[in-house]
Amino acid sequence: MDQLIASLHEALPDEAILTDPDVTATYANDMAGFCEAGAPAVVVMPRTVEQVQHVMRTATALRVPVVPQGARTGLSGAANATDGCIVLSFVRMDRILEINPVERIAVVEPGVVNAVLSRAVAEQGLYYPPDPSSWEQCTIGGNIGTGSGGLCCVKYGVTAEYVLGLDVVLADGRLLSTGRRTAKGVAGYDMTRLFVGSEGSLGIVVKATLALKPAPREQLALAAEFPSAAAACEAICEIMARGHAPSLLELMDRTTLRAVNTMANMGLPESTEALLLAAFDTPDPAEDLAAVTAVCKAAGATEVVPAEDTAESELLLQARRLALVALEKVRSATMIDDVCVPRSRLAEMIDGTAAIAERHDLTIGVCAHAGDGNTHPVVCFDPGDADEARRARISFDEIMALGLELGGTITGEHGVGILKKEWLAREIGPVGLELQRGIKKTFDPLDLLNPGKLF
Amino acid sequence: MDQLIASLHEALPDEAILTDPDVTATYANDMAGFCEAGAPAVVVMPRTVEQVQHVMRTATALRVPVVPQGARTGLSGAANATDGCIVLSFVRMDRILEINPVERIAVVEPGVVNAVLSRAVAEQGLYYPPDPSSWEQCTIGGNIGTGSGGLCCVKYGVTAEYVLGLDVVLADGRLLSTGRRTAKGVAGYDMTRLFVGSEGSLGIVVKATLALKPAPREQLALAAEFPSAAAACEAICEIMARGHAPSLLELMDRTTLRAVNTMANMGLPESTEALLLAAFDTPDPAEDLAAVTAVCKAAGATEVVPAEDTAESELLLQARRLALVALEKVRSATMIDDVCVPRSRLAEMIDGTAAIAERHDLTIGVCAHAGDGNTHPVVCFDPGDADEARRARISFDEIMALGLELGGTITGEHGVGILKKEWLAREIGPVGLELQRGIKKTFDPLDLLNPGKLF
Repeated sequence: MDQLIASLHEALPDEAILTDPDVTATYANDMAGFCEAGAPAVVVMPRTVEQVQHVMRTATALRVPVVPQGARTGLSGAANATDGCIVLSFVRMDRILEINPVERIAVVEPGVVNAVLSRAVAEQGLYYPPDPSSWEQCTIGGNIGTGSGGLCCVKYGVTAEYVLGLDVVLADGRLLSTGRRTAKGVAGYDMTRLFVGSEGSLGIVVKATLALKPAPREQLALAAEFPSAAAACEAICEIMARGHAPSLLELMDRTTLRAVNTMANMGLPESTEALLLAAFDTPDPAEDLAAVTAVCKAAGATEVVPAEDTAESELLLQARRLALVALEKVRSATMIDDVCVPRSRLAEMIDGTAAIAERHDLTIGVCAHAGDGNTHPVVCFDPGDADEARRARISFDEIMALGLELGGTITGEHGVGILKKEWLAREIGPVGLELQRGIKKTFDPLDLLNPGKLF
Repeated sequence: MDQLIASLHEALPDEAILTDPDVTATYANDMAGFCEAGAPAVVVMPRTVEQVQHVMRTATALRVPVVPQGARTGLSGAANATDGCIVLSFVRMDRILEINPVERIAVVEPGVVNAVLSRAVAEQGLYYPPDPSSWEQCTIGGNIGTGSGGLCCVKYGVTAEYVLGLDVVLADGRLLSTGRRTAKGVAGYDMTRLFVGSEGSLGIVVKATLALKPAPREQLALAAEFPSAAAACEAICEIMARGHAPSLLELMDRTTLRAVNTMANMGLPESTEALLLAAFDTPDPAEDLAAVTAVCKAAGATEVVPAEDTAESELLLQARRLALVALEKVRSATMIDDVCVPRSRLAEMIDGTAAIAERHDLTIGVCAHAGDGNTHPVVCFDPGDADEARRARISFDEIMALGLELGGTITGEHGVGILKKEWLAREIGPVGLELQRGIKKTFDPLDLLNPGKLF
C-alpha cells in the first residue's frame, strides 16, 4: 500500500491522489442497487494520458486492480470499487479537444459530460445524439464503457454507432490507437467497437473520436392515451411497420402513470392504462403526427393530443421526465431494469411485468423506449424491509427471465456490471462466455482491469 | 487427402463435394490482382448449418485450412485459396429466412445475393442500404466478411451498422450465436461487430440478422462540372459542413472523365477536371439540389445540371456507373485501391494520386465516394508488361502511403485480405497487431480459418 502510493506519486501531483478513507469511500459505488462494493486503496484523478499510463504501469508492477470511473451514474455496478483497488476517476480529464463540422467529428477526453459536449456541438450546428437520462451528469467515457442509449436512439442509434476511434491505455500501460477519423474504414478487426460496452475491462479509454450528425429540426410531440398496454403496443408496432421515423417513441404503463399523476397532478383519467408519447423532427412533423394519430385511434386510443408548437411538446414530454422521480417516491428505493425485447413482444413484456409485480406484492412501473422495445421496469421497494428487498431482487431477476423468454436481451443500454453477471452467462451461453473470457485474457492477462465485472 | 474427402462424405451429399482439379481451380481466386492463390484440395458447397459444422470438425481433426467464399467479387484476395485447403462456398446456402417489417429485420443465410435481398425487402416497403458496386453478384456473407460499403453509405452507413446478430460456426465446429433480434442490446463484448470485417478468420457466418430501414423516397441528382479537383472538394466540404444529407455524393477525376467520355461519348467538355454527382432522397430534393447548386457555383463549378425527375437523375448517374468499365478499357488490367481520407484532405488525395500516376507513367483514374472521403484510385496496367506491372504495384502502394500520410485508412470498404497485409501492420502498429493476433488465437488456435489473410 505504501509502495503503491509512493509509486503513484512519482508521476502524479499530490492533488491527483486521494487516500483519505472517508474520501475514497465515497468513490465506492455507482447508482446500482444490490451490488457489492469494496474499499478503494486510492482514488487517482489524472489529467493526462501519460499519467494514466503511469497508473497502469504501477498497477501492473504491483498487481493492483484498477476500476475506471466517470460520473458513477451507472445502473449495473460496473463502476463499483473492489477492495484495495485503484479507482481511476476521469472527472478532471474533461477537455473537448476538437469539434470539426467538415469531418463531422468531435475529439474528446473521457471525462467530458454528455450534456456539455451536446451543447458545444449544437453551437456549431451539430448533434451528438446519445442522450441517456443522466446526460447532465454522465461522462462520454462512461457512455462508451456501458454502450449507453437514450430517448433519441429509436431514430439516431446508440453510443456504439458514434464512436469512430479510441485511444486506450492497456493494462500494462502501453497506448493503443483504434479506428479512425474518417467516415469509413475496415482495416483489421473492429477494435473500437470491442471497447464500446466493455465496461473498462479491456483497457482504459483516454480519448475518443466521435461521429456527429447535423443538428436536427425541433421536434413536435403527441400524447396518446390507451385503455390497455396491448392497444398501445399495437400502435407502436403499426407506427414502425408503416415506416415512420419518430425521434422519440416512449411508453408509460399504468403504474407509472398513477405515480406521475399523484405527484404532479397531471389530470390523467383513471381509465388510462398506458400513455404513448411520439415525436418527430421531420420537415413536416404535423403531417407525421396526423398519421400517427390515426394509427393510435385505429389501435383504440381514447384520446390523442398532438402538440401545436415546441412549448406544447415540452409539456407533453414532461410526464416522461417525471416518471422516475415519481416512482422513486413510491418506496424509499428503486431498482431500474433494462430489458429489451422485439417490438412485437412489448405488450407481453409489460403485462408480464405487471403479473410479476402482483405476484410479489410490489410496485413495478414500466417506462419504455418503446420504439426500440427497450423497457425500464422500475422495482420500488424499501431496503429496510428484508422480505420486501428479497422480493424486489427476485422480481428483478424474473423480469430478465421474461425478457429472454420473449427473445430479448437482459440489457438494452445499462450494461452488465456486477448486477447482471449471472444473467449474461445465461444470455450468451457457455461458448460465448468462453470466447469473451478469452478476449479478456488477451487484453488483460493479469485480470487487473475492472475485475469481477461482466463475467 | 483421401481421408479428408472420405470424412467430408460422411455428412455431405456427393453433389456438395467438388474434387475435380479443373473445377476446384476455378475457385482459387477472388477479383483482386497481385495476390497469390493456392490450389484447393476440395470445394464444399453446404446447404445446412450442420454440414458446415461437419466440415469444420473435419478440418480441425485433420488440420486442414478452410477458406470461406461468397461470390468471389472481393478486391483484396481475402477469398483466395491456400494450397490443400477446403474452399467452403456458400452460394447454395442462399435462403432468405425472414423479413419482418415490425422488427425491421431480415434473417438470411450467408449466400443470399445482396441485390436479391434488397429487392425482396423493397417489396415490403423496406430497405437494406449497403450497396457495393458488385451488388448484383456479391453475397451478404461476403459483405459481412469484408465490411462492405457502397454509394449510399454517405447517408445510410456501412454493413457493420446493419448486422444485429450472427450465427457462427467456430473453428472446432461449435455453433456460436452473437447479438440479438432487438433494436438495442449491450450484453457483453460486441462479438457481432468483431466478426464483421474479420474476413472469415474468426469463424464462419452461417446466419445473419440484419437491420432494415424504411424504404427511402426516390432520389433526385445533380451533376456539377469543376475546373479542378480542389474546387470540387471545396464544394464537398461545404455541402457536408452545412449539414446537408445527400444520399449519394460521388466524384470522378479528370482521368476517369476522359475514359468515360471516350467510351460513351458523353460530351463532357475537355475543360472539366472533376465531376461531382450529388443526390437527395429527402422530402423536397429539389430544394436540396438548389442549395447544393449554389454551393457548387460558389466553389467555382462551371456548369451545374440538376435533374428534374428520376429519369434525368438516372442519366446523370450513368457516368458514374460506367467509370470502372471505361477505365478497364484503358489497359488490359486494373487494380482498384480503396483509401479513405478525412473529407478536408480529399483534394490532396486526388492531386497526389495524379502526381503518382505521372511519376510512374501510368493511367490512374479516381472515382470517390466523396462524401465519405473514400477514394477508389483505379490503376490501369498491362500485366504482360513486367515493368508496367511493377510500376502499377508500386503506385498502388504509394497511394496507400499517401492516404495514411493524410490521416486516412488503407481500406474504407474493400478489406485487407492478402493485398494489404503489410499495410495493415503499418496502419494499426505493433501493439494493435499483437492484440489482433491474440484475438485470432482465441478464436482459432490452430490457425485453420482463412490463414494468411489480414496479418
